[in-house]
Amino acid sequence: MIEEIFEQKQEELNQLLEEGNYPVIKARLMEEEAVDIAELFEELDEQKLALVFRVLPKDLASEVFVHFSNKTQELLLLAYSDEEISEVVAGLYNDDLVEILEELPANVAKRVLSRTDSERRKLVNRLLQYEDGSAGSIMTTEYMRLEARMTVKEALHKLRTIKTRVEMIYTCFVTTSDRILEGVISVADLLRADDGEKVADIMEADPHFVITSEEQGEVSNLFQRYDLLALPVLDHEERLVGIITVDDALDVLVQETSEDQSHMAAVQATSTPYLETSVLDNVKRRIFWLMLLMLSGTLNAFVLQFYEPVYVALPVLVALMPMLTSTGGNAASQTNSVTIVAMSKEEISDRDAFRVLWKELRVSIICGFFLALTNGGFVYLRFGRDTRLALCIFVSFFITIVVSKCLAAALPFLARAVNLDPAMVVSPLITTIIDILALFIYYGTAARLFSLG
Amino acid sequence: MIEEIFEQKQEELNQLLEEGNYPVIKARLMEEEAVDIAELFEELDEQKLALVFRVLPKDLASEVFVHFSNKTQELLLLAYSDEEISEVVAGLYNDDLVEILEELPANVAKRVLSRTDSERRKLVNRLLQYEDGSAGSIMTTEYMRLEARMTVKEALHKLRTIKTRVEMIYTCFVTTSDRILEGVISVADLLRADDGEKVADIMEADPHFVITSEEQGEVSNLFQRYDLLALPVLDHEERLVGIITVDDALDVLVQETSEDQSHMAAVQATSTPYLETSVLDNVKRRIFWLMLLMLSGTLNAFVLQFYEPVYVALPVLVALMPMLTSTGGNAASQTNSVTIVAMSKEEISDRDAFRVLWKELRVSIICGFFLALTNGGFVYLRFGRDTRLALCIFVSFFITIVVSKCLAAALPFLARAVNLDPAMVVSPLITTIIDILALFIYYGTAARLFSLG
Repeated sequence: MIEEIFEQKQEELNQLLEEGNYPVIKARLMEEEAVDIAELFEELDEQKLALVFRVLPKDLASEVFVHFSNKTQELLLLAYSDEEISEVVAGLYNDDLVEILEELPANVAKRVLSRTDSERRKLVNRLLQYEDGSAGSIMTTEYMRLEARMTVKEALHKLRTIKTRVEMIYTCFVTTSDRILEGVISVADLLRADDGEKVADIMEADPHFVITSEEQGEVSNLFQRYDLLALPVLDHEERLVGIITVDDALDVLVQETSEDQSHMAAVQATSTPYLETSVLDNVKRRIFWLMLLMLSGTLNAFVLQFYEPVYVALPVLVALMPMLTSTGGNAASQTNSVTIVAMSKEEISDRDAFRVLWKELRVSIICGFFLALTNGGFVYLRFGRDTRLALCIFVSFFITIVVSKCLAAALPFLARAVNLDPAMVVSPLITTIIDILALFIYYGTAARLFSLG
Repeated sequence: MIEEIFEQKQEELNQLLEEGNYPVIKARLMEEEAVDIAELFEELDEQKLALVFRVLPKDLASEVFVHFSNKTQELLLLAYSDEEISEVVAGLYNDDLVEILEELPANVAKRVLSRTDSERRKLVNRLLQYEDGSAGSIMTTEYMRLEARMTVKEALHKLRTIKTRVEMIYTCFVTTSDRILEGVISVADLLRADDGEKVADIMEADPHFVITSEEQGEVSNLFQRYDLLALPVLDHEERLVGIITVDDALDVLVQETSEDQSHMAAVQATSTPYLETSVLDNVKRRIFWLMLLMLSGTLNAFVLQFYEPVYVALPVLVALMPMLTSTGGNAASQTNSVTIVAMSKEEISDRDAFRVLWKELRVSIICGFFLALTNGGFVYLRFGRDTRLALCIFVSFFITIVVSKCLAAALPFLARAVNLDPAMVVSPLITTIIDILALFIYYGTAARLFSLG
């Protein structure tokens, strides 16, 4: 919601709450979408929240509940009677219920589960067992099932009269009685067909699907590549056990890219919103990489100790050193990011490794030449018109940039070859690696040119 | 497609092409999805491509054409007769046609446009005028229109018999005869309603919409927040001019996050796939930031020149310097990334600036303390048990990390306050800024502790 509108609505809600004017509150809230109501409620204190949440009609209450932060969900569940919990839980889709249960403390989760009927409890317990981040963990079980022998008329009649809840009706799933997936059919195709046609004749008999253990990132790739609205999820016996809908695929995509971004900045990923993670959790997410990178940085100290005679003899080298290491680092992280983005968008695959390297080599030669020339010129003019120093800067900048870019292009492919996530291992390490190489190149060149060390 | 399957299919296609067995080729291709066919065809040489593309039935040909790279599209259009161009273009949705035209050289685009009828040409020319990245530029005009006075039965009949193409039928748009948007109605609601009910009574009368000039990033946020399948786009007179569908929202999301990732790594963003961008384009995308960052790095040189007496007197300081600057840079880019990711996921908004700063301050104090202690200890043990040197390292590491994290938390908010994109201006600059500050802190501390300089 736009900031100002949000604040205005919040003020109005507070006002009405103070007046105790619940009928008007209810009427106002009915005009809002669940996600917006949740955002408004999040800002209320515990007592007001429990009070106003009871104003919502059952269905809407469940919808709003899904959008609350974990903390608020827990708070409400603790404040609520068993009866009230049953009502809220009854209105939740199974995938949402599972997501909520996963984040609750064990005792609260147990209490919630005890308020569902035994059949649902069994189902939910099975869903809870799928590994986090797998297709099974994000699927839901409320889908529209049709049979191959149905006519279009019968199918449409079923669609129009079905009483059980279905999360996405636009893609229907055709299965045998023991849930073997035979095909999928879109409501668009059903509508366009004649009443007398058979589902079997117009369904897509060879649909895309994933198995429960598939990675969720792969799932969202399929949605994007094939413009799907829903995707069937099969178990290892090819039985249909659930579906994933496009809105979940969107959420996964957002989550996965933010994880990539975290990894690239050497932060452990988390799905908990920033303001809900504690200071200590934030420390835990970051200190491992900071420590590791700092300790790998001790290698720098050894390299520099080795070259101490060189920079003691020529202290101006020290002044120009950070420019070189940071330019090398920037050049490398550019290439690293371009490569990893292209990989994640599937623009390049493993077979393109040499094409990428060849391109980066040429890019780095051109970039390196101009940067080295500019900086060489700067040093010549600013530091006593010393040709040898300028040449030293030119040569070491050029070599560093070429090496940085080529290495940053090669490492992501190497990481993939040994089944590691490049965003997770290459990106955080690349600048540290380049730092060390740049120092060798720099002082090595200087030692040779000035016959030092 | 999975690498091995892809290569296998490619081999098969080449084999069949050599045999000239077009009936089998056609049968095989009919089993594939358009996007996969496009990928297979991309690898063929020009002549084979033009040949095999003619094998596809018209509709499929248009669908495949959408998925080709710009280069291949241009190539085919140049090789094709006016007649053939007409056929391919006739099968394209307007948003796809616009996207293709935008990337074609002017003369080819003109030729393509000349092969569409005058009404469509007018429409497409209008669509071409929307600014790149706006809602108008990604919308399509093929939507399902209903009238408020229709009964459910009439509406469903229209859905079942409509002859014109519609990109998304599951969300129908209710407008007056002069296209003022009155509401939207989902096919799910139509199906669930009784035949005699009026569209006016069951439609959502206050739907989400965007205006043509809205940013596409905002559009994909709306899809994600409200789980939409389609979103109406209005002009400034509130007339419905087009719709955006969820598959486009997914594409936008992928594009926007990859742009963010590029910006964060100091690369200018592009929507052209990596392998299609030339070496020179790649140089252009990168050299500006590399040059700018290198030149801002000259400030480092001046700072270091100023402190030359300090490190000449105590050369070991030089050996430990890169560890400090890189640790500061890492600490800053962690915070910067965490903040920007949280901003783009709308987990934090401008009003949370102080909460974020307060949290980062505490995180940085804890991280800073442990890192400073570890490194101080390392230096004490490794560099001659010099307490003063160890203390110098401890103090400067601690201050640097706290300053780095707090600054990296504050700057994205400041950037937003002056309407700049934090990913675009803060992320690339942050390590350069931290470098300079870290050098001041480091040599300033050393100068004081050792009474130098």
